[in-house]
Amino acid sequence: MSQAALTHFDKAGQAHMVDVGAKAETERVARAAGTIRMQPATLALIKAGDARKGDVLGIARVAAIQGAKRTSELIPLCHPLPLTRVAAEFVIDDANNSVTCEVTAQTVGRTGVEMEALTAVSVALLTIYDMLKAVDRGMVVGELRLLEKMGGKSGHWRAARADI
Amino acid sequence: MSQAALTHFDKAGQAHMVDVGAKAETERVARAAGTIRMQPATLALIKAGDARKGDVLGIARVAAIQGAKRTSELIPLCHPLPLTRVAAEFVIDDANNSVTCEVTAQTVGRTGVEMEALTAVSVALLTIYDMLKAVDRGMVVGELRLLEKMGGKSGHWRAARADI
Amino acid sequence: MSQAALTHFDKAGQAHMVDVGAKAETERVARAAGTIRMQPATLALIKAGDARKGDVLGIARVAAIQGAKRTSELIPLCHPLPLTRVAAEFVIDDANNSVTCEVTAQTVGRTGVEMEALTAVSVALLTIYDMLKAVDRGMVVGELRLLEKMGGKSGHWRAARADI
Amino acid sequence: MSQAALTHFDKAGQAHMVDVGAKAETERVARAAGTIRMQPATLALIKAGDARKGDVLGIARVAAIQGAKRTSELIPLCHPLPLTRVAAEFVIDDANNSVTCEVTAQTVGRTGVEMEALTAVSVALLTIYDMLKAVDRGMVVGELRLLEKMGGKSGHWRAARADI
Amino acid sequence: MSQAALTHFDKAGQAHMVDVGAKAETERVARAAGTIRMQPATLALIKAGDARKGDVLGIARVAAIQGAKRTSELIPLCHPLPLTRVAAEFVIDDANNSVTCEVTAQTVGRTGVEMEALTAVSVALLTIYDMLKAVDRGMVVGELRLLEKMGGKSGHWRAARADI
Amino acid sequence: MSQAALTHFDKAGQAHMVDVGAKAETERVARAAGTIRMQPATLALIKAGDARKGDVLGIARVAAIQGAKRTSELIPLCHPLPLTRVAAEFVIDDANNSVTCEVTAQTVGRTGVEMEALTAVSVALLTIYDMLKAVDRGMVVGELRLLEKMGGKSGHWRAARADI
Repeated sequence: MSQAALTHFDKAGQAHMVDVGAKAETERVARAAGTIRMQPATLALIKAGDARKGDVLGIARVAAIQGAKRTSELIPLCHPLPLTRVAAEFVIDDANNSVTCEVTAQTVGRTGVEMEALTAVSVALLTIYDMLKAVDRGMVVGELRLLEKMGGKSGHWRAARADI
Repeated sequence: MSQAALTHFDKAGQAHMVDVGAKAETERVARAAGTIRMQPATLALIKAGDARKGDVLGIARVAAIQGAKRTSELIPLCHPLPLTRVAAEFVIDDANNSVTCEVTAQTVGRTGVEMEALTAVSVALLTIYDMLKAVDRGMVVGELRLLEKMGGKSGHWRAARADI
Repeated sequence: MSQAALTHFDKAGQAHMVDVGAKAETERVARAAGTIRMQPATLALIKAGDARKGDVLGIARVAAIQGAKRTSELIPLCHPLPLTRVAAEFVIDDANNSVTCEVTAQTVGRTGVEMEALTAVSVALLTIYDMLKAVDRGMVVGELRLLEKMGGKSGHWRAARADI
Repeated sequence: MSQAALTHFDKAGQAHMVDVGAKAETERVARAAGTIRMQPATLALIKAGDARKGDVLGIARVAAIQGAKRTSELIPLCHPLPLTRVAAEFVIDDANNSVTCEVTAQTVGRTGVEMEALTAVSVALLTIYDMLKAVDRGMVVGELRLLEKMGGKSGHWRAARADI
Repeated sequence: MSQAALTHFDKAGQAHMVDVGAKAETERVARAAGTIRMQPATLALIKAGDARKGDVLGIARVAAIQGAKRTSELIPLCHPLPLTRVAAEFVIDDANNSVTCEVTAQTVGRTGVEMEALTAVSVALLTIYDMLKAVDRGMVVGELRLLEKMGGKSGHWRAARADI
Repeated sequence: MSQAALTHFDKAGQAHMVDVGAKAETERVARAAGTIRMQPATLALIKAGDARKGDVLGIARVAAIQGAKRTSELIPLCHPLPLTRVAAEFVIDDANNSVTCEVTAQTVGRTGVEMEALTAVSVALLTIYDMLKAVDRGMVVGELRLLEKMGGKSGHWRAARADI
């Protein structure tokens, strides 16, 4: 594995937005996830919420979708691409006092949507942090990672970890 | 700890951008950090880079600073505020095959800059992921958290974890 | 007409950016309009303007076009799409002391441009309000609606109202 | 009322962002509202929704708050300002088959927040349109207007209309 | 003049958004200018335009003002600041077949507005290029520079060139 | 060459985003360049920098790429398009105490990428100005122009100037 493997840099080692013009437009899917751990009492506040009172997860879901659309503005070498689908799911884990967010992003394009899925998860979890930080500043985001990608020349990839 | 503690929701439980107009403009500082774990060979690529060839961390640093400035666009209930300083540091941990990013954000304003610091760290680590994902899709971001905050009514707060 | 009809929500009722990846890329057109009513003296100020002095409508036209391009950032579940045309027309109605803005938006894409046309009209009329509010705070925007859409699976639709 | 009253244009009639540097920083409040009319069956869908299923109004509320923060990007001659509060309320009117959105925006600054309140209302109502347009393209936004403003040299202003 | 003079880099040479929190909020003014040279026939098209037909300069003026507000998003180490005034003037120079744009930007803040003025000029001139490029691709932007700045610790500065 | 040649205006002379829906999607390339002149001592600071200390050009390169992606937000009548490649090169000219930036932008689309290339160059050079302005406010940006374009109906175009 040589430096040349870093496609975001040209032969002289300078950063560029790599040429994808010759790639075919194919359907691309990426799934990413991440988790925010908190105090039990903080998790209880999330669980108490619903659309009429304190809907933390509903707001985080909107933030995830909106965040996915801003990915190429945030990640310098990322190509802009027209997302065709973004969906975010939240799972509450009482045993671990945590919330896991999983985002699926899709496009029909010349490059993958991994960064869009990861950015959306990240924005969702930070939005949860923002809404709850007044009661629990010690929350920690972790396990932010790609779960799976499909489409494009590199084909299907799946995270190896058993617990995903 | 009651639902009322969630200041981002009004008495009816509806989300709002909470009123900070009556708060004093004081100096606010926040430090946040996060870590990205990778394969040893991937870390070697980062270490091989410099300004003339494959400067992964230099680009991630710019992304962190730029990302901090977009925080209120990404986090729905976050107030816009004029950042007076943003600095990002990276530490390579060979033992754990990881890179840690720490961001300090500051303002003179009516509300804290925790979200700006956390957003900057998150964007920096995802930028690293983006530049290296062609060789290592399994990288994982973790330990994304607030380390310390100063200023404002709630005063000084420091993360309790010994290892920070 | 059941809840299922709301395509912006999945089966569990959660908001998502709906999958349009399987839709064909076809030409899409949408026309929208809206009206701002004001005092006669305020309308006289608009009519007195031209490119060399107080060109209220020229500035509102630029705002409309710029606004159309930001639609997917403003409307949470809206897909980003590459607009191929945006045009805005203004008609002054002396009898009703009002200005009507009509915007046509087009794309070649997988989803319609209704929201782009509506957003552009809305931004144009609010821009007029902004420029004239110092003399007339009581202006009212109304009749903001879709006039017509073409393209896509749902085909041609036209507003039923006789007066359009 | 002469052309000179249009402060957004200089003496030569050219548009500019007017100088507010000499104005005092005072608390500024603005309230704006608007209404979207629809078919009875469409309104029923909104009423059936809650945080767990089809929460149209919850999403529109987030869009309103996010939209308020983008005002100066959308309205060309509008000053950027640090909002200190944004709140959005929705009232369902069964008799008129409509939903009214009212937004309050506040800042401590050199210029008013009327445009922020109006922009937020507009984005909220268009977001409702977006989510329901698949079942009712004929919805109409109207009565989008300023209700009240406080603060600044021009002081307190209230819309004259009896029905507000 | 040593490397230390580059305040945008810390002692280790890493880029940061420099701390301005301790600086006083004072009135800051910057004037910048730039010129676009073209074919005589192209300039004739600009001169033929007015608000009712082909108002190239009116549109470039709006673009300048809008662009000024985006400066901190474009220039990585630039602080966000609340502009209190932006004005753009255009002068047609028949002898040199060129148009000069001059922008004045102002704020009351902790750091200067030179970049805002320069960015606005640049966006204005590129907007002119965009509108005329179909007839003259060879237009050249030049003499883009700061003319004058006032306010802040470094005080009053004026470009030395006699012809400004 | 008549007014009609200005495609950014309709027959009535009103600005619009011109219809490109009927154009074929072809590969488009544009190369643009510009130069910033400075004091010899200022240029020496740039040359002294590298990734570990004061990497002015590395940061300007990131700014160029990021700026290219924002073009349609900055240039009012510019179409949004999905860039497939952006690369920026810098050449230091000791004889003339200047740095030249050249950007190549590419897309597969219905309209050209000249504005993206020019905007990227402009943002890169202003970023250099920003980082060095504390030591040299008199730097001047010049020779900002299109070098070459390929693709689309108008085909291949090359700047005539011998020195490019």
